[in-house]
Amino acid sequence: MEIDPFGGAVTEKEEKLFKKFGISRFKPLVKKLKNPLPTMKRGFIFGHRNFDKIIKRMRKNKPFAVMSGIKPTNYLHLGSKMVIDELAYLQKHGGEVYYSIADVEAYLDNGLPFEKSKKIAEDNITDLLALGIDLKKAKIYRQSTEPLVQKFGYIFSDNVTKNMMNAIYGDKELKLYLSALLQVADILLPQIEKGKLPTVVPVGIDQDPHIRLTRDIARKHNFLLPSSIYHRHLSALTGDKKMSKRNPKGLIYLREDPEKAAKKIKSAVTGGKKDTKKQRKLGGDPTVCKIYELYSAGFIKNDKKLEEIHEKCKSGKLLCGEDKEHCAEIIKDFLRKHQEKRKKYRDKAREIIEEIS
Amino acid sequence: MEIDPFGGAVTEKEEKLFKKFGISRFKPLVKKLKNPLPTMKRGFIFGHRNFDKIIKRMRKNKPFAVMSGIKPTNYLHLGSKMVIDELAYLQKHGGEVYYSIADVEAYLDNGLPFEKSKKIAEDNITDLLALGIDLKKAKIYRQSTEPLVQKFGYIFSDNVTKNMMNAIYGDKELKLYLSALLQVADILLPQIEKGKLPTVVPVGIDQDPHIRLTRDIARKHNFLLPSSIYHRHLSALTGDKKMSKRNPKGLIYLREDPEKAAKKIKSAVTGGKKDTKKQRKLGGDPTVCKIYELYSAGFIKNDKKLEEIHEKCKSGKLLCGEDKEHCAEIIKDFLRKHQEKRKKYRDKAREIIEEIS
Repeated sequence: MEIDPFGGAVTEKEEKLFKKFGISRFKPLVKKLKNPLPTMKRGFIFGHRNFDKIIKRMRKNKPFAVMSGIKPTNYLHLGSKMVIDELAYLQKHGGEVYYSIADVEAYLDNGLPFEKSKKIAEDNITDLLALGIDLKKAKIYRQSTEPLVQKFGYIFSDNVTKNMMNAIYGDKELKLYLSALLQVADILLPQIEKGKLPTVVPVGIDQDPHIRLTRDIARKHNFLLPSSIYHRHLSALTGDKKMSKRNPKGLIYLREDPEKAAKKIKSAVTGGKKDTKKQRKLGGDPTVCKIYELYSAGFIKNDKKLEEIHEKCKSGKLLCGEDKEHCAEIIKDFLRKHQEKRKKYRDKAREIIEEIS
Repeated sequence: MEIDPFGGAVTEKEEKLFKKFGISRFKPLVKKLKNPLPTMKRGFIFGHRNFDKIIKRMRKNKPFAVMSGIKPTNYLHLGSKMVIDELAYLQKHGGEVYYSIADVEAYLDNGLPFEKSKKIAEDNITDLLALGIDLKKAKIYRQSTEPLVQKFGYIFSDNVTKNMMNAIYGDKELKLYLSALLQVADILLPQIEKGKLPTVVPVGIDQDPHIRLTRDIARKHNFLLPSSIYHRHLSALTGDKKMSKRNPKGLIYLREDPEKAAKKIKSAVTGGKKDTKKQRKLGGDPTVCKIYELYSAGFIKNDKKLEEIHEKCKSGKLLCGEDKEHCAEIIKDFLRKHQEKRKKYRDKAREIIEEIS
């Protein structure tokens, strides 16, 4: 059985991108993974570069690094959770997590002062810990206080021309190019610190330009080329392509009041018909339903159960109102438990952010 | 009496530059300085921006900073000594020296690996100490290991556009622009560390673009605008404009064998005539003589003595051979004494470079 929220997973347009930039389909790798995440089985993670290499390291119990990070411009939400789940999975299977709090980028791209981003970062770290990132195998750092990232950001400008940057990012200002170089240094930090350590970077496909730049620079500086896996972003509940703070009704923060979150769920876009009668007769369309997407992204882990909902929706047995109630309970339950964990990790997060300040 | 190796000191072309960029003549300030250096009295230091402000600090015994540095690409020579003498003078009169070993720039501009530049830097520091820089009032650091310089290099890209950089430096590659931003961070480091501390930067006029960029960025980031003083470079003994490693016959390293140095002195370009007879009759021209320039730059400190030589040369009493012998003795004596001091400071220099590595 193949459960996939977006039907064919890789669209024609994406297929072209894949060919152009040498990205491979993720699907054939799923069977090689121990207890793959719902996002892996269900097509949210849909592409990769050299992830087979990382799988080999996992199987042989050899060290590898998982690199990720975020600009600390806002609180984390359900979409962010998906990425952190990937990190936790890869960490559990042998990876050492490197997590960059990209506060210099937040300053350069968003004008966010360091004192503000520090507070947000503390909150972000609380979520990281509550979502299961194990500090014993993780290095969490701020770009603004990590000398090696800063140093290598400069060093990597060595092999980069303005033409290259224009080709990759368009004709942008210096500060954007510097942000990009800092990201390259972030991604190569595991190797800068520990020599040639295979590294995987979980990213959205929109981040692939950074991966391409990094691989180019890695080649020139005699590092291993980083592997990458590509995920789709969780859609906004309102139907927009991506959960974003610009559309607060479309996203649910991990620290959000569970009752408020439930209300958002109840206003979500679904694949329902105009009225009950029609829906009973014609059934709903789970492929466009944001509720179903949440289930599929991991809020229902059991494949059988997910398939049942899929069938009941399509056959008209399950109506949107009922389904939303169901989903709201799941999300409320998740948020309550997560927020309990957050309380537990709050002091630790403060300790970490002070340590790296 | 006015002793000035270049006649009018400020040329017409320079006058235009001064007006265009708001640089003032140094000369009127000389009388306000306690025991000014020969280079100050004799027109080697010929321009400034807001140096009057620093003089006020000196007079009131208030703190100020003196910022300088060098790309550690080569050993220091007599030309470098002139700048270090300025630092030592300003330090003696109340300034705290900040000295940047610009190894990231050396990497980006010259491709010099850090391990090589570290060795050269150690040698440069030995000279700094032997020339009288007092470690109790000096911070010597490497760009590659000074996190605040690196961090602020990125931060300062904030207010810088590619157009600005093109206007100042021409259409160059990213790495050159990054080098420039690192220099800005170097110059503002005293204020980054200690708040609004008046700072003076002794530079060659060719470095003024960096000063202009720094002042622009300082304004936008609410720092005090740095003051600057502008010196002429010591000419090469062969007559080229500037002592440079590209022309080894034209320069004398501070660690050079004194006898070899004497030979270079004896091959120096002078203002002598074709033969002894002509010179006895018509006299020499000290204004183009590299020997006289060395005297004037400080190897003869006594103004009366310098004037005597000037007169004897012009009248034909002093011939070039004799004068070169005289100069060679002075330089040999200086080098011998300096190299004795170098021996004394070698261990300290090694200690410093290891501390900042």
